[in-house]
Amino acid sequence: MIDRFNIAADILNLEESIRQKLQRPEKQIVVNFSITLDNGTTQNFEGYRVIHNTALGPSKGGIRYDNAVNLDEVKALAAWMTWKSAVTGIPFGGAKGGIICDPKNHSKTELEKITRAYTKALADIFGPEKDVPAPDMGTGPDEMGWLMDEFSLVHGKTIHAVVTGKHLHSGGSLGRVEATGRGVSIISLLALEKLKIRPARATAAIQGFGNVGLHSALFLYQKGIKIVAVSDVSEAFYNPEGLNIPELILYYNLNNKS
Amino acid sequence: MIDRFNIAADILNLEESIRQKLQRPEKQIVVNFSITLDNGTTQNFEGYRVIHNTALGPSKGGIRYDNAVNLDEVKALAAWMTWKSAVTGIPFGGAKGGIICDPKNHSKTELEKITRAYTKALADIFGPEKDVPAPDMGTGPDEMGWLMDEFSLVHGKTIHAVVTGKHLHSGGSLGRVEATGRGVSIISLLALEKLKIRPARATAAIQGFGNVGLHSALFLYQKGIKIVAVSDVSEAFYNPEGLNIPELILYYNLNNKS
Amino acid sequence: MIDRFNIAADILNLEESIRQKLQRPEKQIVVNFSITLDNGTTQNFEGYRVIHNTALGPSKGGIRYDNAVNLDEVKALAAWMTWKSAVTGIPFGGAKGGIICDPKNHSKTELEKITRAYTKALADIFGPEKDVPAPDMGTGPDEMGWLMDEFSLVHGKTIHAVVTGKHLHSGGSLGRVEATGRGVSIISLLALEKLKIRPARATAAIQGFGNVGLHSALFLYQKGIKIVAVSDVSEAFYNPEGLNIPELILYYNLNNKS
Amino acid sequence: MIDRFNIAADILNLEESIRQKLQRPEKQIVVNFSITLDNGTTQNFEGYRVIHNTALGPSKGGIRYDNAVNLDEVKALAAWMTWKSAVTGIPFGGAKGGIICDPKNHSKTELEKITRAYTKALADIFGPEKDVPAPDMGTGPDEMGWLMDEFSLVHGKTIHAVVTGKHLHSGGSLGRVEATGRGVSIISLLALEKLKIRPARATAAIQGFGNVGLHSALFLYQKGIKIVAVSDVSEAFYNPEGLNIPELILYYNLNNKS
Amino acid sequence: MIDRFNIAADILNLEESIRQKLQRPEKQIVVNFSITLDNGTTQNFEGYRVIHNTALGPSKGGIRYDNAVNLDEVKALAAWMTWKSAVTGIPFGGAKGGIICDPKNHSKTELEKITRAYTKALADIFGPEKDVPAPDMGTGPDEMGWLMDEFSLVHGKTIHAVVTGKHLHSGGSLGRVEATGRGVSIISLLALEKLKIRPARATAAIQGFGNVGLHSALFLYQKGIKIVAVSDVSEAFYNPEGLNIPELILYYNLNNKS
Amino acid sequence: MIDRFNIAADILNLEESIRQKLQRPEKQIVVNFSITLDNGTTQNFEGYRVIHNTALGPSKGGIRYDNAVNLDEVKALAAWMTWKSAVTGIPFGGAKGGIICDPKNHSKTELEKITRAYTKALADIFGPEKDVPAPDMGTGPDEMGWLMDEFSLVHGKTIHAVVTGKHLHSGGSLGRVEATGRGVSIISLLALEKLKIRPARATAAIQGFGNVGLHSALFLYQKGIKIVAVSDVSEAFYNPEGLNIPELILYYNLNNKS
Repeated sequence: MIDRFNIAADILNLEESIRQKLQRPEKQIVVNFSITLDNGTTQNFEGYRVIHNTALGPSKGGIRYDNAVNLDEVKALAAWMTWKSAVTGIPFGGAKGGIICDPKNHSKTELEKITRAYTKALADIFGPEKDVPAPDMGTGPDEMGWLMDEFSLVHGKTIHAVVTGKHLHSGGSLGRVEATGRGVSIISLLALEKLKIRPARATAAIQGFGNVGLHSALFLYQKGIKIVAVSDVSEAFYNPEGLNIPELILYYNLNNKS
Repeated sequence: MIDRFNIAADILNLEESIRQKLQRPEKQIVVNFSITLDNGTTQNFEGYRVIHNTALGPSKGGIRYDNAVNLDEVKALAAWMTWKSAVTGIPFGGAKGGIICDPKNHSKTELEKITRAYTKALADIFGPEKDVPAPDMGTGPDEMGWLMDEFSLVHGKTIHAVVTGKHLHSGGSLGRVEATGRGVSIISLLALEKLKIRPARATAAIQGFGNVGLHSALFLYQKGIKIVAVSDVSEAFYNPEGLNIPELILYYNLNNKS
Repeated sequence: MIDRFNIAADILNLEESIRQKLQRPEKQIVVNFSITLDNGTTQNFEGYRVIHNTALGPSKGGIRYDNAVNLDEVKALAAWMTWKSAVTGIPFGGAKGGIICDPKNHSKTELEKITRAYTKALADIFGPEKDVPAPDMGTGPDEMGWLMDEFSLVHGKTIHAVVTGKHLHSGGSLGRVEATGRGVSIISLLALEKLKIRPARATAAIQGFGNVGLHSALFLYQKGIKIVAVSDVSEAFYNPEGLNIPELILYYNLNNKS
Repeated sequence: MIDRFNIAADILNLEESIRQKLQRPEKQIVVNFSITLDNGTTQNFEGYRVIHNTALGPSKGGIRYDNAVNLDEVKALAAWMTWKSAVTGIPFGGAKGGIICDPKNHSKTELEKITRAYTKALADIFGPEKDVPAPDMGTGPDEMGWLMDEFSLVHGKTIHAVVTGKHLHSGGSLGRVEATGRGVSIISLLALEKLKIRPARATAAIQGFGNVGLHSALFLYQKGIKIVAVSDVSEAFYNPEGLNIPELILYYNLNNKS
Repeated sequence: MIDRFNIAADILNLEESIRQKLQRPEKQIVVNFSITLDNGTTQNFEGYRVIHNTALGPSKGGIRYDNAVNLDEVKALAAWMTWKSAVTGIPFGGAKGGIICDPKNHSKTELEKITRAYTKALADIFGPEKDVPAPDMGTGPDEMGWLMDEFSLVHGKTIHAVVTGKHLHSGGSLGRVEATGRGVSIISLLALEKLKIRPARATAAIQGFGNVGLHSALFLYQKGIKIVAVSDVSEAFYNPEGLNIPELILYYNLNNKS
Repeated sequence: MIDRFNIAADILNLEESIRQKLQRPEKQIVVNFSITLDNGTTQNFEGYRVIHNTALGPSKGGIRYDNAVNLDEVKALAAWMTWKSAVTGIPFGGAKGGIICDPKNHSKTELEKITRAYTKALADIFGPEKDVPAPDMGTGPDEMGWLMDEFSLVHGKTIHAVVTGKHLHSGGSLGRVEATGRGVSIISLLALEKLKIRPARATAAIQGFGNVGLHSALFLYQKGIKIVAVSDVSEAFYNPEGLNIPELILYYNLNNKS
C-alpha cells in the first residue's frame, strides 16, 4: 500500500506532512472480549477497527472474520478504502475492521455472540455519521444484522444506517449481493472499450468463485465474453471453447459450494 | 507485569478464562495527529490510550509525554492501574496513555496544540464516567487544564471531572501535588511499624528528586527519619549524618531543577 | 386477535416461546395527566401507548381519542400493526395508542392541551427511530401537528419525522388523506381480478362514509364499479342502479358531515 | 392506600383535581421479555415499573421479584414511596417495580439474565435524575449490581447513581444493609419516649426475621428492650424473660435462614 | 464597569487583546416570546441573557424582572459576576439575565408563564455545567422553581443544579435567603478590623430594607453595631441612639413591606 | 421590512399579537471571539445570528462577512427569509447571520480561523434540524466547508446537513452555484409571459456581475433576451445592440473579476 501510495504521491508532488498524514491511520482500536461457547467454556477474542481518514465524511469499510487477520493488514485495507471513496467522489472516508477467528469453526450462536461483543466494544466508534461497517471476508448479511441490532440496542432505537450489506427485511438494498461482481464486469468492459477489443473476441479466466467471482463471471458471460477458466480454493474448470456459466453456478449451488 | 500477575493468579487459583481477560486490555487506541509547529512546519505525532479494565468503574490513569513511550509500556502501566484501584477499594478501573514526544523540545504553545489534538482524537473515549486521565511523566497541571478545556469545548459545557491533577483555579484538589510523596512516606512509616523499627533509628536513601522524591524526602524528614542520600538524573548527595532536606529543596528550587 | 394469530401460528408451526413473544406486547405504557379546561377547572385523563414488537424496526401505529378506548383494545390493535408492517415488507414494527376522551366534547384549545400533555408524558417513548404515531379514530393532522410540535419543543429542534399524517405545510405527504381509501380500492380490484369478475359487472356496498369509506367509494366509482349502498352512523343511501358518488360527497360536504 | 390517602386528603382539605392527580400514578410501564433458561428453553416474563409522582424530584423505589407481584400492588407501593419521600423532606418522588417470578426457582445465571432483560427494556425510564431503583422483596445487592451494569452498558459509561443498595465495591453505601432495621428501632425508641415508657420496661415481639426484622431486633436488644417473641415464615420463638438475640442470629446464620 | 475595569487593567498591565476580550461578553442572547394573560389577551415580552466569560467554569448570575431592564445594564452586571467569581476563587464565570416586565403588575400565573417561556427559549443556553441562573431584583425562589421545572421538563429529567436560590423542598440550600446580608455584615466587620475600629464604637446607616438590607442590619445589630438609620423606597427611620432592628423587622413584616 | 410587513398584515387583517410576534425575531445572538492573525497579533470580532421564526421548521439563512454588517440589518434579512420559505411552501423558517469583518483584508488562514471561532460559539444554535446556514455576501463554499467541519468536530461526527452551499466533494448539490441566477431568469421569463412580451423583443440591463448577476445574464441571454447593459462596482458596459454575454464572462474570468 505504502509503495503504491508513494508513487501516486510523487506524481501529485504531495508535500511531506500530507504524505505522513495519509500514510498513517487517524485511529486504530484493538478490543479484547470473551464469549461463552456452546460447550460452556469461555473464549477470548481480539478484534480491530482502523479508521484511516475521515476528511471527506464518515469512514466506510468492511469487517473480516479470519484467523489470519492482523492489525497491519487491517491498516492497509483501511487506506485502500480511503482512496476508493475519494476517487469515486463519494463523501466518505476509509476504514476496515476484523476479528481473529475462524468463522467455519463457530456455530451461528457463537458467531452472533462474537459479533455482538465486538459491536458493544466499539459502540462509541461506529455510527451512521461516524463509521459505517460492511461485510467482508467471512462476514455477510447475518453479521451485519447482528451488528445493527446490538448497536440499536445500545442506543435505544433502530439505527438501520449503521451498516450496509444487511438483509433486505432489515432495510438492506436490492442489488447489494451482486454489486461487487457487477462492478468488476462493468470496469472490465470499459477496459476492453479503451483497449478497442470487442467483447465477442475477448476471453476471461476467473480466480475465485464466491460471491464476487460468480457474479463477475455471470455478468461477463451475459455480455458475450468467453469465460475459459474458473477456479476456487478446491477445484478448477477449464474449457478453451468457453464454460457454460449458468450451468456451473447451478452445479455450485447444488453442491453447496458458493 | 504478566509474571507478577501470574504469581498472584496462582495464589488466587484463578481460572484460565479470567486470567486471559485480566492479562489483556479491554481497549487499546492508537491515534495519529499533526500540529503546526512554531516554525510553521507540520509535525505528526502518535498517541496511545489503553483501557485495561472497567469492571469496577470508570478507568483511571495518567498520560505520559516521552520519546520512549510505546504501546507495550502503556499496556503494562494500564494493568497496574487496575490492580491499584482494586486493592485500595476505589470503584475505578485502570487505564494509561501517552504521546511519543519530548516535552523539553516543545514550546508551551506546541505542547498545548499537541494536548488539544490528542484530546480531540479521544473525545469519545474520555469522560468523567468513562475514562479519567491524570498527569504522569512529562505532564502536569497545564496539560490537564488544556485537556479539560478541549474536552469541554467539544462537549459544549465545562466538565471539570474529566481529569484529575489540574490547577486549583480550574477546580483541582488541594494537596494533589504532594499526594504521591505523602503516600510513599505513609506506607514507609507503616512498614517500619510492622518491622518494629522506630523512625528515629531508621535511615533512608531516595532515588529521584522530582515531585515524588522531593515530597517523600520532606515528609520522612519531618517524621525524624535520617535521609542519608538523595540522587537525581544529574547528581547525588550523600551524608551519613543525614541531609538537611529543606535546605536541599531550596537549593533545587534556586537552581530550577525540580 | 389471539385466535387468528394462533391459526396462523399453527400453519407456520411456530414454536411455543415465539408464540408467547408475539402474543404479548414488548412494552405497555399508561400515563395520567391533567389539563386546565376552558372553564378553568382541571380534568384528569388517562392515555395509553402499546409497543407490540420492534424486531423489524421502529414501531408504527395510530393514536385514537375515544371514550371507549381501553388497554386491551390498544394491545390488540398494536399487534395488528406488527402483522401489517411485516406482511407488506416495511422495516417497521407495530404500536398503537389512545386517550380516554370524547373529542367532540372538547374545544380545539382543550384538544391541543390534551395532545401536548400526552406527548410530554411519552417524550422518551416516541421518536423517528423508536416509535412513530399516526392519526386514528378521533385524531387527524391537527393532533399530529401538536404532537410533532411538542416533541420538537422537548428535544429543542424540529423533528418532522416523529409522526406521519401531519399537514402538508408541516412536512406531511401528498396523498396521505386519501391513502387508506385508495388502498381499499386497489385491493378490491385485485380481488376482483383474482375472482375473474370484471369491474363493470361488480357492485359494492360501503359501510361508513368518513375519510376511508368516502375515498374507497370514489376510487371504486371511478373504476366503473356500481356503488349500490352507502351508510354511516346516522343515515343510509341505497340505489340498485348505483349511487352518484361525487354528488353524494358534495352533499356530505355541504352538510358538514364527513 | 386510597382509603388512607382520602383520610389525609380530608384533613388537608385537598381540592378534587389534586386528589385525582395524587391517586393515579404519572406513568405505569408493563414490559414483556424472554430469557434462555439454563436448560436451554426460553421463558417469558412480565415486569412492571410504576412512577407515581415526580413533583419533588426523581422517583425512588424498590423492585421486587415475586410470583404474586401484580400491577395494582406495585401502584399502591409506588404511592407509599411518594408519601415517604415527601414527609421526610427528601427531594425525591415515588416509584416501585416488580417482576413476576419466583427467585428461589432460578439460578444466579437466570436471575442475572432476568434482571438485565428487564433493565434493557426500561433503559429509557431509569436514570440518576429520572427514576432510581433499590432492592425490595426478592432482590438485593446482586440484582442492583446487574441492573447498574446493564444500564451502564446501554449508556456507554459507568453510572453508579442509577441504583441504591448495591455492593460496597460497586460504590454502595456503608450501613445500607442494616439501615431499614435501624430506622425501625430509632422510631420505636422515639415512640417510647413520646409515650413516656422507659426502654428497660418495654417488651417487643417481632414478626419476620429477614434483613429488616433481624436488625430491628438487634438494635432494640442493644438498647435494653426485652424481645419476647420472634417469628418468620416457618417457625417462632417465645420467651417471656426475653430472647438472646445475638445467639438467635447466630442460629439463623448457621442454619442459612436469613 | 468599563472605567473601573480599565483602572484595574492598567494596574495589572493587561495587554490590549485581553482587555478587549474581557470588555466584551462572549455571548449575548435576546429572546422574544408571548404568553396568554389572565384576561385572555396575548402579550409579547423581550428577555436577555448575557454570558460574559466562562474561562474559569460555567457562568453564574441572576435574572431580574424589571421594566427598566436593558441589554447594556445586563452586559455590565454579567461582567461584574465574572470578577466576583474570579476574585473569590470559585471555578465559575459570569452571566446575567433579565426580562422587561413589571412583576408587580402580573399575577403568579402570568409570572409562571413568563418564566417558563423565557426558560424554554434559553433551554440550550442554561445548564449545570454551562450557565446557572439565580434570583435577582424581582425574582425569588418561585421563579427559580419554575425555571428548574421547565428546564427539567425540556430535558426529561429532574435537574436541580440548573439554578441556585430555589425553595428548600426543591433542593435549595439552607441559609441562602440571608446569605447576601450575612456577607455584607462579615465584610463590614472585617473592614472595621482593618481600620482598627471596635464594633461597639461603630455606627451604621442602611439604605434599602429588602432581603439584603434587612439581614445586613440584623447581623450587624447582633454584633453590637449601632444602626442609626434605615430607609427604603417609601420611608426612613433615624435614631442617633440606635434603632431596635428586631422590632423594625417585626413592623415591616406586620405591614407586609419586605 | 416592517413597512412592507404592515401592508401585508393589513391586507391579511392580522391580529395585533401575531403582528408583534412576526415583527420580532425569536432569538438574536451576538458573539465575541478573537483569533490570532497571520502577523501574530490577536484581533477580536463580533458576529451575529438572528433566528426570526421557526414555526414551519428549522430556520434557514445565509451568513455575510462585511464591515457594514450590523444587528438591525441581520434582523431584517432574517425576517425576509421567513417570508421566502413560507410563500414558497418549504417547511423551513427564517434566519440570517453575519460577522463584522472585511473578507478582502484577511488571508484564507484568517478567514478559516474566523469561521471556525464563530461556529464554535454558535455550536448550540446551528443544526440540521435547528438552524441551517448558507453562503451570503462575502462567504462561499469554503466558509461553508469550514463551518461544517468545525460543527462536525464539535459533535464528533460528520454532519453534512448543517449547511447548504458547500463544495460538491463535501456533499454539496449540483447546480447550487448558478441557482440564484437561474431563479432570477425563470421569474423574469414568467413576468414577460404574464405581461405578454415575447423574449425576443425584450431587453435587459443587469446591475451587479457577481455570482447572481453573471448567471442571470447568461440564462436570459440563452433565452434570446437582448442584454443591453451590465455593470458592477467598478465598471459598466453598454451596447444598445446587445452585449455578447459569454465573451463578457470570459473577459471577467481572465481579469479575475467575478
